[in-house]
Amino acid sequence: MDWRQNVRTAEPYVPGDQPDKKGMIKLNTNECPYPPAPGVAQAARDFACGSLRLYPDPACGLLTGALADYYHVGPEQVFVGVGSDDVLAMCFLTFFHSDRPILFPDVTYSFYDVWARLYRIPYRTCPLDESFRIVPEDYMQPNGGVIFPNPNAPTGILESIDTIEKIVKANPGSMVIIDEAYIDFGGVSCLPLIEKYDNLLVVQTFSKSRSMAGCRIGFAIGNAETVRYLNDVKFSFNSYTMSRLSLSLGAEAVRDRAYFEETTAKIIRTRERVKKELAALGFSFTDSMGNFIFASHGRIPAKQIFEALRAHDIYVRYWEKPRISNYLRISVGTDEEMDRLTDFLREYLQGV
Amino acid sequence: MDWRQNVRTAEPYVPGDQPDKKGMIKLNTNECPYPPAPGVAQAARDFACGSLRLYPDPACGLLTGALADYYHVGPEQVFVGVGSDDVLAMCFLTFFHSDRPILFPDVTYSFYDVWARLYRIPYRTCPLDESFRIVPEDYMQPNGGVIFPNPNAPTGILESIDTIEKIVKANPGSMVIIDEAYIDFGGVSCLPLIEKYDNLLVVQTFSKSRSMAGCRIGFAIGNAETVRYLNDVKFSFNSYTMSRLSLSLGAEAVRDRAYFEETTAKIIRTRERVKKELAALGFSFTDSMGNFIFASHGRIPAKQIFEALRAHDIYVRYWEKPRISNYLRISVGTDEEMDRLTDFLREYLQGV
Repeated sequence: MDWRQNVRTAEPYVPGDQPDKKGMIKLNTNECPYPPAPGVAQAARDFACGSLRLYPDPACGLLTGALADYYHVGPEQVFVGVGSDDVLAMCFLTFFHSDRPILFPDVTYSFYDVWARLYRIPYRTCPLDESFRIVPEDYMQPNGGVIFPNPNAPTGILESIDTIEKIVKANPGSMVIIDEAYIDFGGVSCLPLIEKYDNLLVVQTFSKSRSMAGCRIGFAIGNAETVRYLNDVKFSFNSYTMSRLSLSLGAEAVRDRAYFEETTAKIIRTRERVKKELAALGFSFTDSMGNFIFASHGRIPAKQIFEALRAHDIYVRYWEKPRISNYLRISVGTDEEMDRLTDFLREYLQGV
Repeated sequence: MDWRQNVRTAEPYVPGDQPDKKGMIKLNTNECPYPPAPGVAQAARDFACGSLRLYPDPACGLLTGALADYYHVGPEQVFVGVGSDDVLAMCFLTFFHSDRPILFPDVTYSFYDVWARLYRIPYRTCPLDESFRIVPEDYMQPNGGVIFPNPNAPTGILESIDTIEKIVKANPGSMVIIDEAYIDFGGVSCLPLIEKYDNLLVVQTFSKSRSMAGCRIGFAIGNAETVRYLNDVKFSFNSYTMSRLSLSLGAEAVRDRAYFEETTAKIIRTRERVKKELAALGFSFTDSMGNFIFASHGRIPAKQIFEALRAHDIYVRYWEKPRISNYLRISVGTDEEMDRLTDFLREYLQGV
């Protein structure tokens, strides 16, 4: 007898490349190139550290209140978690409690199938069409739930509110979860639909458009009933997940609407400019509405470009996966960073 | 068809009393009455908030390194999580992957059966003896794992290293997890046993002895192999749980050994003094080695005292549960807070 017989073995995961080299250009994890709103640094300096001896507010009132104000909903319609991964995992656990398979795209965020397996939720993937678009009819078959990102990851393709509404409307028997991690870079959120459909939940994150990946904050907005279900499940096995610092700094980040609009607009401008430059270099790409560009070169395999970039300390994302193995996902950095990327590519592509 | 059919319903949990009244005395959640080490506040003031735009180090090197230094183990022997609840839940998921029941005491930390049900782990509770002590032989029956707190919660009773070793030695076929949330208040940690037994994992928290309940940090120490299993499972479904602030402030809290020893010694002194005063008032109690006293009055039912205290804004913990429904769990606060408690009790008990 050996204790190892009782161990759940998991695919040994290699944490995503988080290089930390001087002078490197990090465009591989869709982080925001700009710092958080100025109020966040002020909140950290002013934070009363003595209060850390006490447990945080389990209801996270400070943060749900700030989000409710920003999105014009009630605080009882907001659920917060340790990054959107935590929120999404909690949604899987709460709303996908069915014997019928849940549905999500074949090319999508890579944790959906992981959580489904973890919680023993049956699932079926629906192939995107030739141009990586969702086929709404696929999501009208019997199912135990629906989830997809909008814009989708890693393609950046945005589906219209009409498409979302069609899918939500066709599924009164299951929850539809729209993962809007990248919605703030030119997309239109389906949040207004929550007033009309109680089987819709919208998940967003502070990691991209709010420059807070290091703080771990994600949230879901739905109606009061769905949020109560989420909280009931969450509280049933973990009372306190959000630290006092996350609550305080997170609330501060939400309050500064002007800074948020300014930085997201800058990222959109840079993205559109770089799209043109990449096109001139022979790249083609989806019309990404995320803070990244999903690009393929007409002549040189993506993997080869990925390795050449890495050798020059420019980090982008590459997956050796079906359908997307000839694409690079390039996060949108500052204009200076993107110039160094395109300068390198120009020279490199001339030489191969 | 209604989407509610797929919802996992959970016991609607009422978050623990977290009152926030001016002048109240909060002795209900075993928080530390003293602020975190001075270096923590300095670290918050100095924190480079611009770095929050980047994801944190998924390996949590800063914090595992500080803990490894403190406990004289290798950093590859340390696993960190969002409070010990997160660490313990991850341990359940990783090490209790068996069809045989896991074993824990009937009177113990209230989340063990919750996590077991959540992950569909069969479990059996072993009754503590008449004086609330663990019966080591109970843990020598066939099992899929063993877990208990030492000192136990909410009794505060400490089992000896010999008892722990006997149980670990008798279970080469399963993991034994010792939850040492309260070990720093006079107990002796079983950490040295990890060199001898690879089926032992020790879990501790920053929430009690390190005054950081509001920061959400817990950790496990074992051998490199068990910690690798934990990380494999954790990374397989969530890459980033510890915020950059938690890593930075947590590491600072660990470094200050003198402050840690001073505050825990103060709490022990206060506890022992208050035990004498409570005895004089007609209370009896276990020999608690935690930062709390588990007390029962000879004449007045615990529930009645609990309610009288609450009516005077003195909050302690009471459970309407088998075996312990005539006990109060009173966290050890400052000397001033404890004086107000005993002053009130003296007067109250004279009047009833």
